[in-house]
Amino acid sequence: MKFIPGGICAVEKVQAAGSCEDEYGLAVIVSEDSTASAVFTKNKILGAPVLVSKESLKNGKLSAIVINSGNANSYTGKEGLENAYQMRDKVSEHLNIKGEDVAVASTGIIGRKLPMETISQLIDETIPKLDNTPKKSRDAAEAILTTDTRPKELAVESTLSTGEKFRIGGICKGSGMIAPNMATFLCFITTDVQATPEELGDALKEAVSNTFNMVVVDGDMSTNDTVILMTSGSSGKIDHKFQEALEYLCTGLSKLIARDGEGASKLIEVLVKGGRTNDDARKAAKAIVTSPLVKSAIFGEDPNWGRIASALGGSGSEVDEKTMTITLRSPEKEAAMVDKGDIKAFEGSKELEMAEEIMKSDEIKITIDLFLGDAEATAYGCDLTYDYVRINAEYST
Amino acid sequence: MKFIPGGICAVEKVQAAGSCEDEYGLAVIVSEDSTASAVFTKNKILGAPVLVSKESLKNGKLSAIVINSGNANSYTGKEGLENAYQMRDKVSEHLNIKGEDVAVASTGIIGRKLPMETISQLIDETIPKLDNTPKKSRDAAEAILTTDTRPKELAVESTLSTGEKFRIGGICKGSGMIAPNMATFLCFITTDVQATPEELGDALKEAVSNTFNMVVVDGDMSTNDTVILMTSGSSGKIDHKFQEALEYLCTGLSKLIARDGEGASKLIEVLVKGGRTNDDARKAAKAIVTSPLVKSAIFGEDPNWGRIASALGGSGSEVDEKTMTITLRSPEKEAAMVDKGDIKAFEGSKELEMAEEIMKSDEIKITIDLFLGDAEATAYGCDLTYDYVRINAEYST
Repeated sequence: MKFIPGGICAVEKVQAAGSCEDEYGLAVIVSEDSTASAVFTKNKILGAPVLVSKESLKNGKLSAIVINSGNANSYTGKEGLENAYQMRDKVSEHLNIKGEDVAVASTGIIGRKLPMETISQLIDETIPKLDNTPKKSRDAAEAILTTDTRPKELAVESTLSTGEKFRIGGICKGSGMIAPNMATFLCFITTDVQATPEELGDALKEAVSNTFNMVVVDGDMSTNDTVILMTSGSSGKIDHKFQEALEYLCTGLSKLIARDGEGASKLIEVLVKGGRTNDDARKAAKAIVTSPLVKSAIFGEDPNWGRIASALGGSGSEVDEKTMTITLRSPEKEAAMVDKGDIKAFEGSKELEMAEEIMKSDEIKITIDLFLGDAEATAYGCDLTYDYVRINAEYST
Repeated sequence: MKFIPGGICAVEKVQAAGSCEDEYGLAVIVSEDSTASAVFTKNKILGAPVLVSKESLKNGKLSAIVINSGNANSYTGKEGLENAYQMRDKVSEHLNIKGEDVAVASTGIIGRKLPMETISQLIDETIPKLDNTPKKSRDAAEAILTTDTRPKELAVESTLSTGEKFRIGGICKGSGMIAPNMATFLCFITTDVQATPEELGDALKEAVSNTFNMVVVDGDMSTNDTVILMTSGSSGKIDHKFQEALEYLCTGLSKLIARDGEGASKLIEVLVKGGRTNDDARKAAKAIVTSPLVKSAIFGEDPNWGRIASALGGSGSEVDEKTMTITLRSPEKEAAMVDKGDIKAFEGSKELEMAEEIMKSDEIKITIDLFLGDAEATAYGCDLTYDYVRINAEYST
């Protein structure tokens, strides 16, 4: 599979637009009369836009999404909910569609009043710019960013078992890379396969669990996390080929998110093989990408396999130090740190020298084989840097 | 209750000593023919000294503990285990006691060979210095530090229900303050009450759960975490007064650990009241002290109650944004950020101004009332600073 240009606008008839003013951004995505499904945060405190979007998605139909950045409109009480409805209604009036066909998403500071005047102006500005061109997907991807440094959009084209071509496009924002991270994660995906809301929902849940949940989204979520998948239904019937392509797209977006984590200087990919169970493999992989000690060692370009082993042992996953192997890789090199309990990278060894070279790369891949079963999982993360602290100490008020 | 000087040597007949050489430190604690119990890490990978100490503690008896810093002797295979036994045997020969009456603990880098020659020399140097004076407790407390910046020792004297006086003394090391933290936590406590190993074990488990587990020790533990409690039995029978004093001592040590977290500039104390269950209150309190977003906001002196609310909502604890209150305190001031869902600290308010003053303090107390039940819990932590990243990027190799 290969990525194609165009982001969400790679899908026929999908229109997008985005505008920014000061610290606020606004994007609108239109895919008329779509079937839709979503995955929302499990945080017990829900942002007002999440409440509104849940209502809109009840009937599995959606025609548009309005998203603002700069203020999460969360923990804002009754007035916040009114503001979220106002965003929804303003867009539905502009587009002459029903209010319940519009979903709303917001990201930014929590617990502060949404500056409704600015948001209204931005909606008025954005709607006339709607169009189905790659530039418009890019504009929307830019408008939804907060502390992200780069817009994130991808698209794929693939073929259903029946031979019919289909496309999937997505834009997202992440950032805030130490779990439990609490930075808002938003993702909007367009496609054209035929599917019921339930079929879409199953496909999306499976993809989120294998991809986004291995980066940022977790039991510990922001109050506003939202992933929406909407389809025009103009291509053939959904099947496993769609699932494959959807996970390919979401994996790509996950890597973009990890690489652009707050202050990140290196992408970390952890593959755990030989886990006793899938859950074990997932826990082990995530424990490594979330360990601040591992993450800061990687920032320091230190091949500290002791911290990796300790994170594995503390992950709750079944591990045996005598059977496991730890290998470090960059796109160019490979070094076996530990081979079934034997330390290969002892001081003065060629392996340690190679590992130190590998750590200079900006893409570090850590492979663990637990040799306890067949389960595999991959997790993505980034290093912990001075800039993470700076960004989060300076953000807000 | 009040603290008294003397650390572990506040208890009669307890002898201690410590020595340092380059990055290595060594401490010996002697309390002959003691009854003893311990709590060890739950990490699946166990440091060699943990294996040896578990064996020594099987019969509930202990006469001495030998501790080294600079190398954790963990993930070091057969040779590591031999080295841990060698440490034990060297001390037992010097003191003319049985090997199984000596416990071993190590902290420092993981996965590297213990420099046995240096450790042996340090043992030879340390044993002749053993004595029951406050200075010796301090020397031992210093010898066990790694990235900690200050030795940590406390002692209390209290009275049993029978009127008999008893004493408890403790030294510890912590550091590495973002959960899952993985920094080794060691604590050694001496006392003189009469107790069976089981009674001591129950008292210790309860105290650890209410104090250390609310700071650093957790399901996600280092490979070497060890807390040992040993008693000479020269005072009266253990009772609830002992439990009270033990928890008072452990709370004091917990605060010292939190305040000296890697790079820490501020102590954070979170009190959650009105939880539906104890577990809920604990989860909520810990979620706040472990949230990197909350911790870096506090470093930035930003009273960001939105991040506190989001961490609460993501903690897994039952919370209701409409009933809860969030209050910030310093030793001098108090500001109500949110009162039963109503934001008091809106922009331009007196409360926000006060909150901004409070954040300049180096002791920040966050009180949450969930108004859902009677359960309470307190957790301790510190802010996330540039220095945390520097220390952990530079440490090792």
